[in-house]
Amino acid sequence: MDKTDISVKRQFLVLVHLDLKGAPPKVSYLAEIFPLFAQLGASGILIEYEDMFPYGGKLEVLKSKYAYSPSEIKSILHLAKSNGLEVIPLVQTFGHMEFVLKHGEFSHLREVENFPNALNPHKVGSLELVHLMIDQVMALHEDVKWFHIGCDEVFFLGEGEESKMCLKQGQNHVDRLFLSHVKAVAQHIVTAYQGVKPIIWDDMLRDSPEDHIKESDVALLVEPMIWDYSPEFDINGKVSLAEKYQKCGFNKIWFASAFKGATGANQQLTHVRHHLENQFLWLQVAKAFPGDLVQGITLTGWQRYDHYSVLCELLPVGMPCLAVCLQAVAHGQFSEKEDETVKKCLGLSSLDTNSVVSDDFGTFPGNDILRLVTEAAFQLAASTESLLKGNRYVTGWFSPYHRKHKFVNPMMVQYFENECRSLLSKWEQHAEQLRSAMENIYYPNTMEEWFDEYFNPFLTKLQQLVFDLDHVSNT
Amino acid sequence: MDKTDISVKRQFLVLVHLDLKGAPPKVSYLAEIFPLFAQLGASGILIEYEDMFPYGGKLEVLKSKYAYSPSEIKSILHLAKSNGLEVIPLVQTFGHMEFVLKHGEFSHLREVENFPNALNPHKVGSLELVHLMIDQVMALHEDVKWFHIGCDEVFFLGEGEESKMCLKQGQNHVDRLFLSHVKAVAQHIVTAYQGVKPIIWDDMLRDSPEDHIKESDVALLVEPMIWDYSPEFDINGKVSLAEKYQKCGFNKIWFASAFKGATGANQQLTHVRHHLENQFLWLQVAKAFPGDLVQGITLTGWQRYDHYSVLCELLPVGMPCLAVCLQAVAHGQFSEKEDETVKKCLGLSSLDTNSVVSDDFGTFPGNDILRLVTEAAFQLAASTESLLKGNRYVTGWFSPYHRKHKFVNPMMVQYFENECRSLLSKWEQHAEQLRSAMENIYYPNTMEEWFDEYFNPFLTKLQQLVFDLDHVSNT
Repeated sequence: MDKTDISVKRQFLVLVHLDLKGAPPKVSYLAEIFPLFAQLGASGILIEYEDMFPYGGKLEVLKSKYAYSPSEIKSILHLAKSNGLEVIPLVQTFGHMEFVLKHGEFSHLREVENFPNALNPHKVGSLELVHLMIDQVMALHEDVKWFHIGCDEVFFLGEGEESKMCLKQGQNHVDRLFLSHVKAVAQHIVTAYQGVKPIIWDDMLRDSPEDHIKESDVALLVEPMIWDYSPEFDINGKVSLAEKYQKCGFNKIWFASAFKGATGANQQLTHVRHHLENQFLWLQVAKAFPGDLVQGITLTGWQRYDHYSVLCELLPVGMPCLAVCLQAVAHGQFSEKEDETVKKCLGLSSLDTNSVVSDDFGTFPGNDILRLVTEAAFQLAASTESLLKGNRYVTGWFSPYHRKHKFVNPMMVQYFENECRSLLSKWEQHAEQLRSAMENIYYPNTMEEWFDEYFNPFLTKLQQLVFDLDHVSNT
Repeated sequence: MDKTDISVKRQFLVLVHLDLKGAPPKVSYLAEIFPLFAQLGASGILIEYEDMFPYGGKLEVLKSKYAYSPSEIKSILHLAKSNGLEVIPLVQTFGHMEFVLKHGEFSHLREVENFPNALNPHKVGSLELVHLMIDQVMALHEDVKWFHIGCDEVFFLGEGEESKMCLKQGQNHVDRLFLSHVKAVAQHIVTAYQGVKPIIWDDMLRDSPEDHIKESDVALLVEPMIWDYSPEFDINGKVSLAEKYQKCGFNKIWFASAFKGATGANQQLTHVRHHLENQFLWLQVAKAFPGDLVQGITLTGWQRYDHYSVLCELLPVGMPCLAVCLQAVAHGQFSEKEDETVKKCLGLSSLDTNSVVSDDFGTFPGNDILRLVTEAAFQLAASTESLLKGNRYVTGWFSPYHRKHKFVNPMMVQYFENECRSLLSKWEQHAEQLRSAMENIYYPNTMEEWFDEYFNPFLTKLQQLVFDLDHVSNT
């Protein structure tokens, strides 16, 4: 990997994406990790609040039970500033509005009646809603230079009744519906908040004809953020895409890579090599644009695929990968020096970017979660299934039928009872440690969800097994 | 495989073991398969009644709810006779008396208080019990020449209080405790039923010093049945063992191979090659004894490992293997001719003894069970796990957490709902067909047990999944 000149460009921003739509950390944890972000090379954060923003008034219903308070938002901004991190808020204003459109109060604004993902751009209430959301967020974010309005993956746009009517009238295409709404939202921002530049995800523009984009004037209003999280995308394709956006009139563009949450909706552990390769590709793309076209890169860290999906890798689990990716992007390479910096920042004695697992979990904030989740990911399901499906005494003498009838050979019980009890005990202790570690960082709903998804399905099997053993033992 | 002279020996009996301690077939099914046994080369059956014998009086509690009636026993014996099959009843009288010693009425006769497997040979009531069982069985079995009294695997013999006292007095060894009880039981038979020879399983004799066996006089009373179900046992070791028994004074010995129920307590399908190799080994052992020392061979077909364990392969599932093994043993080889006989008898168009599965299930009685069980064994767990653990929409958008909270992305439901419903429907239909096929052959408790063990754990998962889908769809 050649060293690029990214690191010496004054204005090239390296943002860490905080996806708060799942497992939002407590502010106290952000206070611990923002300094690390900065040390590792980040120059800003892209905060996707989703339901963690303290919406009020007509929007009160949008906020989660555990949403940050306005004073907590202020704290976050203060923490960012004191660590030299630029803050860019992200509010979805078109697609991925599930957290808004799932509510009865707003479901009439759906593009397709049954699907809560996309906003209907034809309804007057839709723009009012989006403006209100933006205004409430802006009210707590003075001094921001950019405002990310999302606009990715507007699935099923064009399939609402009004859209169908529009499209029937000819001349109109789905991408014009898209561009028109983006323009309206962006105009609100540039009009109401001077000096603030809207950013959008680029995926809806990729296949739009250049003339559609040009004639929409969207290029004068927003900066597109080109995203691709693959470790093997076509560099030339990306260069061409950036050139297309230049031709359409965009003066500035952004890139977005990923450091976690992009390898499976229910991914528990982060594949460092996968994400590092993704950064290397973006560094190559950046080389093609030596001027100041590229504003920066966001290292996305998805916490869910959408509002309704399971949690993927927790932030502390993705921390080593984030550190590696930040160093690679900040210095244009990942050599011995960057390796040393990562180890020093995270308190690691060794680092293997090719392995998904290490036995060194460092000393960084949340390292206990990394350790406990890693151990569970590798051993919980395996040891439970091995007992229930692999232990010949359990499979042969303590089957569902036996357990239903509380019927067991007391002679055989001695050959598997200890293993059942000790395995349950091991994982109950592990769960206790993990709960305790998570409590420092997460709210109760995150703990419930994570345990229900990744831990309890197995723990419950062991608990039921021992419950049944207790029951037959007493007869 | 050389052709041995077994088939031309007049007195060499080839017995099929009917293990009725699990999945006992209705008499109507025996009526269908006894002719097949005979056609395929069997000359007798070894019936292990366990709790299927219509014990009465003080022993009434021993019999299963679905035990055969005395008139059914008569029918079985008549069916055997009319097919030229010698009948040898088997009643456990020392080890594996779980079906007796589990009852409160007889639990005081256990060798070890907590373990219902072995009889305490020191208690007066023990011999009384065993004699009574033998007498009741003999009362319905006129004309039998042999009576198998079990006596294998007398686990924990010597660990009861009385045994420990005996052993402390020196001179006595556990094998003497064993031989002494066997002698007492055998003496009852030869005294009360002239011309009836007791048979025992040989495993408890294997390590007994020759002088202990000789001085016990057991060799004058019983014929040992040497068993080994492995496809790779040491032939010379078996020859030596038979020679040891000869030296101990046994004039007649038996062999026992297996055609099913010997490859895992929860084995659903029968590995024909495994069992065929086992027969080949026994044919080699038999060659070493060209005289009339060897009375015959029993092809065991275990239906459980003990009274408390799960069901292993159902009889119709093991039928192709039984046919192959019978032909091999009867003709001393398995060549084209035997292959043709098996195919003709079972209505198979093809036969692959090396494969555990075939797509030809023949036309023999119970062939529908073979087909339906084979399909379920290969696809039920696999398709269920593939949906629950492999479908990215299910794992990402319909996890235990979502299902608990009835929370689902309506947009995503369309990507997995049909697959869930059609998979459930497929297996519900399959279950219905299998129930209907099993009803012809089995009693309700067998069906309940088989389904609870092998089918319902997966069907229930699918039912719960669709139930949860129904539930969220309505919200």
